[in-house]
Amino acid sequence: MPTYDPLTPDGLDALERGWRRIVSDLGIEFLHEDALELFRRAGQRVDGELVRCDPDWLLETLSTTPTAFTLRARNPERSVEFGLDRMVFTPVQSAPFVREGTDRRNALFSDFERMVRLTHVVDDLDTPGYPVCDPADREPETRHLDLQMALIENSDKPYGAAQFLPVGVADSIAMAEMVHGGRAALEEQPALFGIINANSPRRFDTRMIGSLLLLAEANQVVVVTPFILMGAMGPVSIPAALAQQTAEALVGMALAQLVRPGCPAIMGSFISHTDMQSGSPGFGGPESAIGLLVSGQIARRYGLLWRSGGGGLTSSQVVDAQAAAEAFSTMQAAFLAGANLVLHTAGWLESGLVACYEKMALDIDILRVLQHEFTPLDLHDDPAAFAAFDEAGPGGHFFGTMHTLEHFRDCFYRPLVFSTENYERWESRGAKDTAVRAGERVTELLAGYEQPPLDDGLRQELQAYVARRKVEIEAEL
Amino acid sequence: MPTYDPLTPDGLDALERGWRRIVSDLGIEFLHEDALELFRRAGQRVDGELVRCDPDWLLETLSTTPTAFTLRARNPERSVEFGLDRMVFTPVQSAPFVREGTDRRNALFSDFERMVRLTHVVDDLDTPGYPVCDPADREPETRHLDLQMALIENSDKPYGAAQFLPVGVADSIAMAEMVHGGRAALEEQPALFGIINANSPRRFDTRMIGSLLLLAEANQVVVVTPFILMGAMGPVSIPAALAQQTAEALVGMALAQLVRPGCPAIMGSFISHTDMQSGSPGFGGPESAIGLLVSGQIARRYGLLWRSGGGGLTSSQVVDAQAAAEAFSTMQAAFLAGANLVLHTAGWLESGLVACYEKMALDIDILRVLQHEFTPLDLHDDPAAFAAFDEAGPGGHFFGTMHTLEHFRDCFYRPLVFSTENYERWESRGAKDTAVRAGERVTELLAGYEQPPLDDGLRQELQAYVARRKVEIEAEL
Repeated sequence: MPTYDPLTPDGLDALERGWRRIVSDLGIEFLHEDALELFRRAGQRVDGELVRCDPDWLLETLSTTPTAFTLRARNPERSVEFGLDRMVFTPVQSAPFVREGTDRRNALFSDFERMVRLTHVVDDLDTPGYPVCDPADREPETRHLDLQMALIENSDKPYGAAQFLPVGVADSIAMAEMVHGGRAALEEQPALFGIINANSPRRFDTRMIGSLLLLAEANQVVVVTPFILMGAMGPVSIPAALAQQTAEALVGMALAQLVRPGCPAIMGSFISHTDMQSGSPGFGGPESAIGLLVSGQIARRYGLLWRSGGGGLTSSQVVDAQAAAEAFSTMQAAFLAGANLVLHTAGWLESGLVACYEKMALDIDILRVLQHEFTPLDLHDDPAAFAAFDEAGPGGHFFGTMHTLEHFRDCFYRPLVFSTENYERWESRGAKDTAVRAGERVTELLAGYEQPPLDDGLRQELQAYVARRKVEIEAEL
Repeated sequence: MPTYDPLTPDGLDALERGWRRIVSDLGIEFLHEDALELFRRAGQRVDGELVRCDPDWLLETLSTTPTAFTLRARNPERSVEFGLDRMVFTPVQSAPFVREGTDRRNALFSDFERMVRLTHVVDDLDTPGYPVCDPADREPETRHLDLQMALIENSDKPYGAAQFLPVGVADSIAMAEMVHGGRAALEEQPALFGIINANSPRRFDTRMIGSLLLLAEANQVVVVTPFILMGAMGPVSIPAALAQQTAEALVGMALAQLVRPGCPAIMGSFISHTDMQSGSPGFGGPESAIGLLVSGQIARRYGLLWRSGGGGLTSSQVVDAQAAAEAFSTMQAAFLAGANLVLHTAGWLESGLVACYEKMALDIDILRVLQHEFTPLDLHDDPAAFAAFDEAGPGGHFFGTMHTLEHFRDCFYRPLVFSTENYERWESRGAKDTAVRAGERVTELLAGYEQPPLDDGLRQELQAYVARRKVEIEAEL
């Protein structure tokens, strides 16, 4: 389906003037000597930790970024194709809390496992990403080892690296090497992706750069994402924030190409606003949607794969009307804007603080509605549909026409949690609202889960690695 | 903002082949001798009640349909401009039931008045239309007189004619003549619009044609709307149903031009599906959205104003996540498709059986979000926003920059019922979900209502007309 372009070419030119000025005049800080050295060697101006780039050099450097690649899964049938006309979906990431029904609690390791399993059974989600939620019942320093192991054991879809610290990335790569047949095989076809956040405005911190360097060296997928809440990490102006986002993302992506030309890299976008009355972040409002729509246009201008901040975003505290309206708004914007990687597609609640089971089922329904809506219509002349007009006659009905009888099973979208029941029937079946039905659907989905097979030798090798690394890390504390 | 065109020109050609075949080969029934005579005189083939048109003649006949006009309100400041790049919004229409909190009841006359008042105080709604709900506590035969009177007394926005029977239209016109200074003035600038439904498939019934003829003779706005639930009134194929919708709408609009060339007429669209498992109608799903997106393209191809089936549609039974997702989906589709008249924007629930107060406030927030999103970005280079980058510095924040301080009041959308409160604050304030907050907002909006002034002489004249007509109509029963 076509993308939606809100800006005229003049408008895009204005944004380009903005990001060019930011990268060349203001510059971006890189708090890592290896990164500074790479920019220096490439002939860019480095003052202390501030890097100023020639914008034309930047675009030239980005020209080695691939626009299509396969993210390898341990089950080859689950490998995921990335491309300019494709969309890849992950559930919510990094939520410290979980909501299940009316229970709002710290995320537990068992929640992490259940959410990975949900992702595994839902065909519309391509990858769990990495931290669907952040379990509080595992030690922060070694948690990433447990999560990587759980990702491998509970699903055979591709997944993300433990990106928050270089040590996490190094362990993720080591484990992925075991899964995929060694370093050379891993470098040949990426199996991990990592979200590298800018410390907006105009800064990448030491840890994130360290993670980026390790991923790029191993030819794994780098998703450079400025996270900009306008009013806090960016100006209270959507065009200025978009110029900032573009500047930060392009320079970060260029770093990946300096490390390893041809390394798969994705332009990240994540613009939202700060509620200037409360100081709270706001997600899923019109600013989020506009940010997404224009980000897509920017990515297309430069021929880059791009990640949308999210589908499914909301500031709502519960799975109510606001949650669904905001989720639908951001998800539809991701479709209209042609996002190639959509994070937070399912389960995001409360501005991302909460991974919610019922929201997950709701969002999956919304995702499926949009996949249905954005499938091009089959417009070949259909004599059978036409014959139905004659068969029904003026003022007649189509329930019994041949064409209807042939197609009634699959002619329309069949929802997961949405209901068309009439009031009396709905009431007699318990008057369950969408959130309640979504909870029931989660239970059904989990009941249908089967753990995919994993070679015993590989499992033991991974377990031994995890055990050894835990001892090493704890010894260093 | 640009519209979204899902179909290629080839796709539109295929749809055009479809509607041409329907109007020329299959034909449309008109159960009214005056209509048949008009088609006959225009040289079209009439067999019994079946009219077959030359498609080229049809397009030629429609060329007198205006693409811009003003719908006159009794307060000139409330008059509404129609045009190809404008959108006009009405609340839900024709609901037999009302929902308020957990109370679901037959609609009452007091509900009708309160919903007209809500429409009056909300700037984003341009007109109450005609029957926001169908009060059960007034006699069906004379109800239209009370409703027309209530529309005039409770708001000075323009409104719709009592379109369901010719007698209703005649009384609406007579009363509008009193309000607007006589027949000649009314004919000069329309003050009423009427929804003329086709009795799909391929039929207009006697009463609807009678209403259309009266409206067109008086130069009032005719909105010709096929109402097609695929599987019931149309084939289970979106392209075939769109061809049918176009055929029925164009021929109905042509009838208006035969009555009075230059009469304002709007192409109606209303395609949804039948849940083939339950037999219930489904609203707000992907089929509704696709129907809207393509209807807009069809209208643009023929240079016609068009009405979207709705914004705000849903099959949900309560103001929950499904209600909001489906409402957002149809409302956004109406925006993307550039609908010029959007019915059912606010308050629609339970497949249109229910007009719901809380849903009204929710939908108004959704409408405002989309109006914000579909306002073109101001992309002039903004030195103040740029200076903020310098002021904040790398890794800094923008809360205190000059640019933020100057713009914090109006830089972002401020919602009506949506909340960004953090969990603790939200909980301490009663843990109210969106539906509860929407109910509070309705109370506030109604508290702010003031009845607009109405000339005493005019009021008495209208009251006398209503009283006299009630006696006449009752005498005829």
